[in-house]
Amino acid sequence: MSYNSFGHIFRVTTWGESHGPAIGCVVDGVPSRLTISEDEIQHFLDQRKPGQNRFMTQRQEADKVQILSGTFEGMTTGTPISLMIENTDQRSKDYGDIKDKYRPGHADFTYMEKYGIRDHRGGGRSSARETACRVAAGAIARKVLGLGIEVKAALVQIGEHEINRDNWDWDEVGNNPFWSPDKDMVPVWEKYLDDIRKKGSSIGAVIEVHAFGVPAGIGAPVYAKLDSDLAGAMMSINAVKGVEIGEGFNAARLTGEENADEMYMDEAGNPAIRTNHAGGILGGISSGKEIVCRFAVKPTSSILTPRKTVDRAGNETEIITKGRHDPCVGIRAVPIGEAMMACVLADHILLHRAQQG
Amino acid sequence: MSYNSFGHIFRVTTWGESHGPAIGCVVDGVPSRLTISEDEIQHFLDQRKPGQNRFMTQRQEADKVQILSGTFEGMTTGTPISLMIENTDQRSKDYGDIKDKYRPGHADFTYMEKYGIRDHRGGGRSSARETACRVAAGAIARKVLGLGIEVKAALVQIGEHEINRDNWDWDEVGNNPFWSPDKDMVPVWEKYLDDIRKKGSSIGAVIEVHAFGVPAGIGAPVYAKLDSDLAGAMMSINAVKGVEIGEGFNAARLTGEENADEMYMDEAGNPAIRTNHAGGILGGISSGKEIVCRFAVKPTSSILTPRKTVDRAGNETEIITKGRHDPCVGIRAVPIGEAMMACVLADHILLHRAQQG
Amino acid sequence: MSYNSFGHIFRVTTWGESHGPAIGCVVDGVPSRLTISEDEIQHFLDQRKPGQNRFMTQRQEADKVQILSGTFEGMTTGTPISLMIENTDQRSKDYGDIKDKYRPGHADFTYMEKYGIRDHRGGGRSSARETACRVAAGAIARKVLGLGIEVKAALVQIGEHEINRDNWDWDEVGNNPFWSPDKDMVPVWEKYLDDIRKKGSSIGAVIEVHAFGVPAGIGAPVYAKLDSDLAGAMMSINAVKGVEIGEGFNAARLTGEENADEMYMDEAGNPAIRTNHAGGILGGISSGKEIVCRFAVKPTSSILTPRKTVDRAGNETEIITKGRHDPCVGIRAVPIGEAMMACVLADHILLHRAQQG
Amino acid sequence: MSYNSFGHIFRVTTWGESHGPAIGCVVDGVPSRLTISEDEIQHFLDQRKPGQNRFMTQRQEADKVQILSGTFEGMTTGTPISLMIENTDQRSKDYGDIKDKYRPGHADFTYMEKYGIRDHRGGGRSSARETACRVAAGAIARKVLGLGIEVKAALVQIGEHEINRDNWDWDEVGNNPFWSPDKDMVPVWEKYLDDIRKKGSSIGAVIEVHAFGVPAGIGAPVYAKLDSDLAGAMMSINAVKGVEIGEGFNAARLTGEENADEMYMDEAGNPAIRTNHAGGILGGISSGKEIVCRFAVKPTSSILTPRKTVDRAGNETEIITKGRHDPCVGIRAVPIGEAMMACVLADHILLHRAQQG
Repeated sequence: MSYNSFGHIFRVTTWGESHGPAIGCVVDGVPSRLTISEDEIQHFLDQRKPGQNRFMTQRQEADKVQILSGTFEGMTTGTPISLMIENTDQRSKDYGDIKDKYRPGHADFTYMEKYGIRDHRGGGRSSARETACRVAAGAIARKVLGLGIEVKAALVQIGEHEINRDNWDWDEVGNNPFWSPDKDMVPVWEKYLDDIRKKGSSIGAVIEVHAFGVPAGIGAPVYAKLDSDLAGAMMSINAVKGVEIGEGFNAARLTGEENADEMYMDEAGNPAIRTNHAGGILGGISSGKEIVCRFAVKPTSSILTPRKTVDRAGNETEIITKGRHDPCVGIRAVPIGEAMMACVLADHILLHRAQQG
Repeated sequence: MSYNSFGHIFRVTTWGESHGPAIGCVVDGVPSRLTISEDEIQHFLDQRKPGQNRFMTQRQEADKVQILSGTFEGMTTGTPISLMIENTDQRSKDYGDIKDKYRPGHADFTYMEKYGIRDHRGGGRSSARETACRVAAGAIARKVLGLGIEVKAALVQIGEHEINRDNWDWDEVGNNPFWSPDKDMVPVWEKYLDDIRKKGSSIGAVIEVHAFGVPAGIGAPVYAKLDSDLAGAMMSINAVKGVEIGEGFNAARLTGEENADEMYMDEAGNPAIRTNHAGGILGGISSGKEIVCRFAVKPTSSILTPRKTVDRAGNETEIITKGRHDPCVGIRAVPIGEAMMACVLADHILLHRAQQG
Repeated sequence: MSYNSFGHIFRVTTWGESHGPAIGCVVDGVPSRLTISEDEIQHFLDQRKPGQNRFMTQRQEADKVQILSGTFEGMTTGTPISLMIENTDQRSKDYGDIKDKYRPGHADFTYMEKYGIRDHRGGGRSSARETACRVAAGAIARKVLGLGIEVKAALVQIGEHEINRDNWDWDEVGNNPFWSPDKDMVPVWEKYLDDIRKKGSSIGAVIEVHAFGVPAGIGAPVYAKLDSDLAGAMMSINAVKGVEIGEGFNAARLTGEENADEMYMDEAGNPAIRTNHAGGILGGISSGKEIVCRFAVKPTSSILTPRKTVDRAGNETEIITKGRHDPCVGIRAVPIGEAMMACVLADHILLHRAQQG
Repeated sequence: MSYNSFGHIFRVTTWGESHGPAIGCVVDGVPSRLTISEDEIQHFLDQRKPGQNRFMTQRQEADKVQILSGTFEGMTTGTPISLMIENTDQRSKDYGDIKDKYRPGHADFTYMEKYGIRDHRGGGRSSARETACRVAAGAIARKVLGLGIEVKAALVQIGEHEINRDNWDWDEVGNNPFWSPDKDMVPVWEKYLDDIRKKGSSIGAVIEVHAFGVPAGIGAPVYAKLDSDLAGAMMSINAVKGVEIGEGFNAARLTGEENADEMYMDEAGNPAIRTNHAGGILGGISSGKEIVCRFAVKPTSSILTPRKTVDRAGNETEIITKGRHDPCVGIRAVPIGEAMMACVLADHILLHRAQQG
């Protein structure tokens, strides 16, 4: 990963500020002759789009993607795909208060320390708006993965409320505004989040991303490990503070007997792995089991409760962030996590093909 | 991160197998005129060295580092520093049993699926022996950081036993074989690990790494985030399954009010941050607060209990891994975590200087 | 350099096809707080713009650049600068004949072999239109270089007609449509090119780029040599077939006595170099002397004379390329060569600062 | 290319100084299950080895290569291949005179300006001794290319004396100490170089490298062009001042009719290209024709004639470089040019496979 790019072969570069004229990305290294359309990309962008229900920021962005290059007659040409999303609802006046005050828990202060200048309008480059580009790139990555590999994510925790894994049903994920795989959790989260929202507060969450159908052998030692790149990718999403593969931190509590997944010969006569504590990755390389990655999203610090801070002139002061924010940004991180998984996998599949044919 | 290299400017490439003639690394991008000696590097390697007490593998490696290039009259010259550690205690006969059987939870199977060939002796390239090179590179990274930045790590959990953070004392870390900052935990872990060791079992652990003195402004949006690179770096260490910054997964349980660190003007008249839920990083950029990173290490799967597996010929079988292994590999991961933190910080300090002078 | 990006720190990614909706680039790694405006970038784009006189393609492109991100209130913010130029005069019907036939000397055939698909309209991605993005990026690079470093280029040869170096006058370069530093050569080239143009033919050229004011110490051994990166950068320009530094190929004819530039102490008491056979670079590192780089541009293969070729169906046939082409594309390569020199220097100055402060 | 590494997938990192304990390289990204032995690498190193005849430096280096990692039972394993060559004939006392004086035309001054320190013994890192590592890496690259692709180079010019291309015979190249493909030129060069050598002078040369059997489609627009990477690779070789593809600088003298290579259908019914002015590359992508690259090597500046220079203390002085140098370093650049061509091709073949399968 470098400043604003990630990936080795399937390489994504994003650009744009929250309240500039547009945001976008350039996706390079895409194999030719994949069918792709703006509608297919739009489908995934719409999942992330703000303003869809009361648990999301009410900022209204059409988030209409345009393909500016890299396709011809509906197919990729192997040249860089440039995607652009115009910013339509910028209302920068809403953000006047944060022009001079540093929002606690925000990047306002650190950007200022680093660059000596910042585009304060809506967080500028540090805005989660950048993640729309990841989702768009992820739609292209899925084309690289093809039909055999499926990437799906779900929300598994909001605040103290974790789902019951016995209830996990992927079909439920699209049936509720939270991407919950446990339908029993939906009314609990609904009530809980309504309360958070009314107080002008916010809360953290945990997202879990699965990839099905990834063949064994993808990834690479030692520093291009599949899990290493996934960790970097997920941690690069705004507000993420932790990443786990398989058992994750729980592995610290297990013995070798409990944790190591035994092998057997499957019905087709191929070596197979029974359990999946490893989350589908051994030694940085996919094992053929489902890949499982989780990440934790902190609560947004844009809240209505007054908080102590300082301003650029060096005065202590208080701040209330009035913008239109998400009570639980973790919800919108679900399609973003899927997109990052798709991008990392697409990249590693190409990288594997490079070395091993 | 690419196959066997990491870092943007301060760039480390490692090579070598567990039972080949030697292992080593090339450290590139090091500023000139830093004093460095083999003894200084050796100091850190000795911390990681196997065979130091009964809680470590009894493999006896001198782990003597040689500087082959990049220094002149005791100073760095700005050219690549090549470090080599000869493998002296290879005893490859110990590993005869794993030649044809895949060890559950190991990279044996995935390497074979990827490459169609593997050096089975002691795990070959997938061996934790590679981490000696990280520690050596970390010693050079510390020179880049200089005296103002200090990197320290400690073990905070083995199995179910977590330290009491109220007892945290950095001075205790060097006084016990576990790098525990809580001296009351030492006898508990001692008894617990003796039991694990006698059973031929193994257990996971959690390591916490702190960096003191990092100025605000280090790191970069969006994909060269300091936390993103730290996550990738820590996850690339053998057996790591989770990484956290600051509150980590606990951030999912917090409200915006609880999590966002308030600001104030310090005695010197500079903006400062009171609490440190963020772990010293906001928007991917250091805030001037202590940087805090944690990672979870799974239990080694090299255990004496027979485990079901398959062999290369496609027969179901059982395996006992008899080698000389660590009951808790997490212990030796402490200096490795320090080294990776030092390398990532050195790299980002140079990267920041590139762009911002 | 990777697929569509170049540079280590100052990193340029370009995208777009000749006849798509737009072309553009993302310039990453730019230091913050540099003043920059669309007008300043436009100034350089206008130098390269087609249709300015009868020695250029008559394609009429406004080539209006828009800054979409990375600046705030007229200054760079340190975040990626996205530049876009809309394609206005696409007239794709002109190119109907080349849809199925491979133009000799063009990338038509090799793109098809590589990708199995190509955007034939105006050459698609292989069109020299891409170079507008280089010129735009070069305008930003000049901001990084600052006032102390000046990059200038001139045309020194068209076909058999080379300038007389005794007549070299930088002030003349802007006074003629050929960027000739030798005013006596202008009428010669004028007559010569009129003849070429009327025959529907084309001719090659040589461009020479100088950089003044580059301090000693920029560049790096062994593979990030300044001359190595310059060679790669210039050779990446469409139609370039050769690159030289200083004496270039003439160095093969010289003895060590003739070629090695002697040193002396200058009036300010600093070590200095008398002659400049080396073209300002020794061991890949700038010497403080003027940097001198030359490159040869082949004649465009889009000519009116019928040429033997094959079509996609495998039939032998003939082709005449009717589009609106340059009789000597080398003329428009002058600002492009300047831009590439500026980009490489900006990148290396940041890279040097990274390692050496 | 970064500081001391080059290549995208097939990536070579070299290290070591002329008079340190050893030099070496790490070759990463090599596909697994290629047979490789030290003897096969040694074969190519012996071609470059100094001291083989009176036209080379009389420095006596065994240049014995050791494989330290990345192979198992004679085959590559897909992990990094570490190669080391110990320095045996260091005789550093010979270089006492250059400790404080800057050799004109050498990197002494620029290294000092950049790093403020330099290993003056034999040129340290700037010594052509580094190129032994390129040759070793090239031997591995040839394994990646396989039997279908052959890379061969020849010397085509020394000083004013160019070969007669009508006499070109690849079989002659190995029959004379100059790698001349024109046997009639051998006595001419012999006499000419004896004269140069006796005077303690030196002379430049031109090397031409051909690659046979490269399929169409290798390379990539726009900045990973095959010719762009070749230009960067060749220019990174010590003392190289110019690079050409196909017609090179001569293309500036040609018309479109003369330069563009016509196409036809060959006997097997495939599209083919008749002439090869393009040197086998169109739009940065291989055309299926022989790839032809030339580079010019300047005369070494280590000569016996006294030259004016300055010392580190700022005094004007004279210098005679007494070491054991090559009268024409271009001769030993022949196997180096081959190696760089092989490395770039291997890299691009893997890179092509990544994107296009």
